[in-house]
Amino acid sequence: MSDKTFSLAEIAKWVNGAVRGDATVKIDSVCGIAEARPGQITWLAHEKYARDLARSQASAVLVPETYGPTPMPAVLVRNPEIAIIHVLERFAPPVPRPAPGVHPRAVVDDRAQLGANVAIGPGAVVSAGATIGDNTVLHGNVFIGEDTVIGSDCEIWPGVVIRERCIIGNRVIIHPNTTVGADGFGYQYTEGRHVKIPQIGTVTIEDDVEIGANCAIDRAKFGTTRVGRGTKIDNLVQVAHNVQIGPGCLLVAQCGIAGSARLGRGVVLGGKVGVRDHIVLNDGVQSAACACISKDVPAGTTVIGMPAVEQEQWLRERGNIRRLHSLYEQVKVLTKRVEQLEATADH
Amino acid sequence: MSDKTFSLAEIAKWVNGAVRGDATVKIDSVCGIAEARPGQITWLAHEKYARDLARSQASAVLVPETYGPTPMPAVLVRNPEIAIIHVLERFAPPVPRPAPGVHPRAVVDDRAQLGANVAIGPGAVVSAGATIGDNTVLHGNVFIGEDTVIGSDCEIWPGVVIRERCIIGNRVIIHPNTTVGADGFGYQYTEGRHVKIPQIGTVTIEDDVEIGANCAIDRAKFGTTRVGRGTKIDNLVQVAHNVQIGPGCLLVAQCGIAGSARLGRGVVLGGKVGVRDHIVLNDGVQSAACACISKDVPAGTTVIGMPAVEQEQWLRERGNIRRLHSLYEQVKVLTKRVEQLEATADH
Amino acid sequence: MSDKTFSLAEIAKWVNGAVRGDATVKIDSVCGIAEARPGQITWLAHEKYARDLARSQASAVLVPETYGPTPMPAVLVRNPEIAIIHVLERFAPPVPRPAPGVHPRAVVDDRAQLGANVAIGPGAVVSAGATIGDNTVLHGNVFIGEDTVIGSDCEIWPGVVIRERCIIGNRVIIHPNTTVGADGFGYQYTEGRHVKIPQIGTVTIEDDVEIGANCAIDRAKFGTTRVGRGTKIDNLVQVAHNVQIGPGCLLVAQCGIAGSARLGRGVVLGGKVGVRDHIVLNDGVQSAACACISKDVPAGTTVIGMPAVEQEQWLRERGNIRRLHSLYEQVKVLTKRVEQLEATADH
Repeated sequence: MSDKTFSLAEIAKWVNGAVRGDATVKIDSVCGIAEARPGQITWLAHEKYARDLARSQASAVLVPETYGPTPMPAVLVRNPEIAIIHVLERFAPPVPRPAPGVHPRAVVDDRAQLGANVAIGPGAVVSAGATIGDNTVLHGNVFIGEDTVIGSDCEIWPGVVIRERCIIGNRVIIHPNTTVGADGFGYQYTEGRHVKIPQIGTVTIEDDVEIGANCAIDRAKFGTTRVGRGTKIDNLVQVAHNVQIGPGCLLVAQCGIAGSARLGRGVVLGGKVGVRDHIVLNDGVQSAACACISKDVPAGTTVIGMPAVEQEQWLRERGNIRRLHSLYEQVKVLTKRVEQLEATADH
Repeated sequence: MSDKTFSLAEIAKWVNGAVRGDATVKIDSVCGIAEARPGQITWLAHEKYARDLARSQASAVLVPETYGPTPMPAVLVRNPEIAIIHVLERFAPPVPRPAPGVHPRAVVDDRAQLGANVAIGPGAVVSAGATIGDNTVLHGNVFIGEDTVIGSDCEIWPGVVIRERCIIGNRVIIHPNTTVGADGFGYQYTEGRHVKIPQIGTVTIEDDVEIGANCAIDRAKFGTTRVGRGTKIDNLVQVAHNVQIGPGCLLVAQCGIAGSARLGRGVVLGGKVGVRDHIVLNDGVQSAACACISKDVPAGTTVIGMPAVEQEQWLRERGNIRRLHSLYEQVKVLTKRVEQLEATADH
Repeated sequence: MSDKTFSLAEIAKWVNGAVRGDATVKIDSVCGIAEARPGQITWLAHEKYARDLARSQASAVLVPETYGPTPMPAVLVRNPEIAIIHVLERFAPPVPRPAPGVHPRAVVDDRAQLGANVAIGPGAVVSAGATIGDNTVLHGNVFIGEDTVIGSDCEIWPGVVIRERCIIGNRVIIHPNTTVGADGFGYQYTEGRHVKIPQIGTVTIEDDVEIGANCAIDRAKFGTTRVGRGTKIDNLVQVAHNVQIGPGCLLVAQCGIAGSARLGRGVVLGGKVGVRDHIVLNDGVQSAACACISKDVPAGTTVIGMPAVEQEQWLRERGNIRRLHSLYEQVKVLTKRVEQLEATADH
C-alpha cells in the first residue's frame, strides 16, 4: 500500500502516545484488526473487537491509555479513533494534483482572478469574473461559471460544474461530476403548460463543507440555497432550491431535500432519506435510512419510516403488524367461544 | 441582487397591472413576503399569506385585482404568480453564455452542421454528422455524439453528454452532467453469465422539455425512449430504455422510471418515486413522494406508499395501523369478559 | 433503423437456425412483436405472446425449434432470446468511437502507458503513471487519474472520472458521467466537528463489469472496494467505500450499497434498493425494488419492503393490513354480542 516504513517509536510521536512493548518494530501501513498482516498497525475502535485483536496478525495496535495487555506492541493514546486518522494521513499516498499554475490546456478567462498557488488542471474552464482563492485546486475538466467566488484551500475534483454567481467558502471539497448552481425546479402552470420561473438566486457553500460525487445542489429562486459550515454530504444527494442546511450536518448518499426545507445544526440523515419541501428538521434530528419525512421534526428527535414517525412509534407499529396473525387467530377463537355462549344462553 | 432599479409604474406596465398607491416608489429586486426588505417587490401567492404581508418590509406587492388594501403600494394584476415571473425575468441577472460561434478550444467535427447564431463553449465536443439548430447554446465541456440532432433555441449546460443518434427538439434545456442516450440495462442470462443485449435504439426529447442535473435518460433497446413535449424533469432522475413519457408531465428529483413504462399526459410524480417496468400510468396520475408504483394506475388517480395504492386506501390503512394498539387492548378485555361469561355459564 | 437488408436465409445462418417458410424474404431491422412492421424480424420471447404474434405485421419471427406454425416465415432456434441478440448485433448501427491513437486535443501525460490500438478522444485526460490496455477506448472528456490501470477492450464513455490508483479489468464498460474512486464518506466526530478520515484505499473493477451512467463507486478507506467479475450495474447507483460485490450480480438503477456491505454471487437488487453498511447479502439473494435491507440475508432468499423481510412474510403482513378494516368490524360486533350475553347473564 505504501513504500514508507516507520518504527513504532516514530508513530507514537505523531499521536502523542506511549509505546508499550518493542518500540523498534517496523510498520509499513495501516489495516483493520481482522485483515491486518505482519508489518501493519491497527487500532482498537471498541472493546467489542478485543477478541479480534487476540487473533490479529498486526505488528502493533493503537489502544486507549487504560487498556490492558495486548498480543502485540501497543501505542497508548487518548482516543484510538482520532489517533488512527493522523497515522493514516502519514501513510496516505500523496493525492495527485495538477501542478500549481494554469495548465496550458485549461481555459481561464482574462477577467478571472486567481490567488496564490492556485492549480488548474487540463480542460478546466474558469469564466469571466470568477475568483479562485489561494492554494485552491481545480482538477481537470472542472467548469467554473461567471462571477463565482471560490475560497482558499479548496479541492474541486474533475467534472464538477459550478455555475455563475455561486459562493464557495474555504477548505471546501467537491467530488467529481457534482453540479452546483443549476436552476431550481420551479414552474407555474398556466394556459395548459408549465411556465418556467426564473431561478435568479445563487448557492452558498460555507467553510469546511465536503460534497460527494454526482450530487446536485440547485441555485435559489431568489436569495440563496445554503449548506452550512462543516456539513458533509455523501454521493448522489439532491439539495433543491432555497434549501437551508445548518452547520455540522451529515447527509448520507442518495438523500433528497426538497425546496425551501430547513435543517438545523447537526442533523444526520441516513441513506436515501427524503425531506419534503418547506418543512423544518430542527437541531440534532436524526433519521434512519430510507425515511420519507413529510412534516416538521422537533429538535433531537429520531425518525424512521414512510411516513417518518418517531422511532418508538415506528417500532410499536412494526411490532403490532408482526403480531397481527395471532390477533386474527384470537378474534376467530373468541368468536367461536361467543357463539357457544350464545348457543348455551339460547336454551 | 441587481443594480437595476425601476419605478413601480414601470413594473406595472410589464405585467399589465394598475398601481394603487405611490407609483414612484423605486424597486431594485424581488423577494418573498417574509424576507423582503425595503426596495424590494413581493407578491401575494395565496390569501393565507395576508398576515405575513402585514409584517412585510417590502416596498411594493403584486396582488389580485380584487384584493383589499395593503400596507404598501400595490400592483393589481389578474394572477400574481404569473405576473411575478415576468418581474423576475426583468430583474434576473443575464445568464452567462459562451459567445456566438465556436470557441477555439471547442472541438467541432467538419461533418457537423451548425445553425445560425450557435454558441459553443470551450472543451465542448460536437461529433461527425451532428446537427445543432439556430441559437442553440452548448456550454463548455458538453459532448454531442455522432448524428445527434439538436433543435433550435436549446441550452445544454456544461458536462452534459448526449450520445449518438439522439433527437432533441426545440427550446430544450438540459442541466449539467446529465447523460442522454447511454445504453439501456439489458442482459440475457445464459451459460452462467449475463450477455449484453445491444441497445440499438435512440432517445427522443420533444420540444420545451427541461431536464435537471445529473439525470440519466437511456437509449431504447430498439425504437426510441421518449420524453414528451413540455415535460419537466428534476435532478438525478432515471429514465430507462424504451420508457414513453407523455407531454406536460412533472418528475420531481430522484424519480426512477423502469424499462418500457408509459406515462400519459400531465402525470406528476413526487420526489423519489419508483415506477415499475412495463406498467402504465394513465393521464393525470399523481403520485406522492417516495411511492413505489408496481402496477397500472387509472387516469386521474392519486397514489402513495410502498406498494403504491390509492391515497384513500393508504390513509385508511395508516389509520388502522395507528389504532392497532387499542385494538389489541379491546381484544384482551373482550377475552376476559368472555372468560367470565364462560365461568358464569359453567355453574 | 438501418440501411442494411438481409434475406431470412442469411439471418438463419447467423443463429444456426432453420428457416420454415419463404427463406428469400428481405429483412431490414428488428422490432418487438406488437410494434413490428413489414420488413422487420421479431422473436417469440414467451408462449404468452403467441396471441400478439397472430396480429403481428413482422415479416419473420424467431421461434423455439418445437414451436408450431406461425403466420409468417420463421427461423427455428434453440433459444430465441439468445438468437435475437446475435441478430441485433448485426443490425446495430456501428457505435461511434474516436479514431485509434490520441486525439490532438486529448492530454496524455508522457509517463502514461498506452497499449496497442488504444483510442483516446478529444478533451480526455490521462494522468502520469496510468496504464491503458490494448484496444481500450476512452471517449471525449474522460479523466483518468495517476497510476490507474485499465485493462484491454474497455469502453469508457464521455465524462467518466476514474481517480488515482484504481484497477479496472478487461472488457469493462463505464457509461457517461460516472465517478470511480472518489473518497469514501468517513468522518470522526471530535471536538464539535466532523474530522475527515483519509480514504487511502482504492477501487477494483473486475473483468466484464458494466457500470451505468452517473454512478458513484467510492474508493476504500484502506484496501479496496470491489465489483466482481461480470456484475452489471445500472444508472445512478451508489457503491460506498469498502463494499465487496461478488461476481454476476445485477444492481438496478438508483440502488445504494452502504459502506463495507458484502454481496455474494449472483445477487439481484431491483431499482432503488438500499443496503445497510456492514451487512451481508449471501449468494443468490434477490430483492424487490425499493426495499431497505438492514440485516444479513441468507443465500437464495427473496426480500422486500422497509424494513426488508422475506417475501412470504411481507405478503402475509400486507394481507393482514388490508383486511384490518374487517377485523375492526368483527371486534365491534363481537363486543356487542358479549354485551348482550352479559346483559342476559345479569338477570
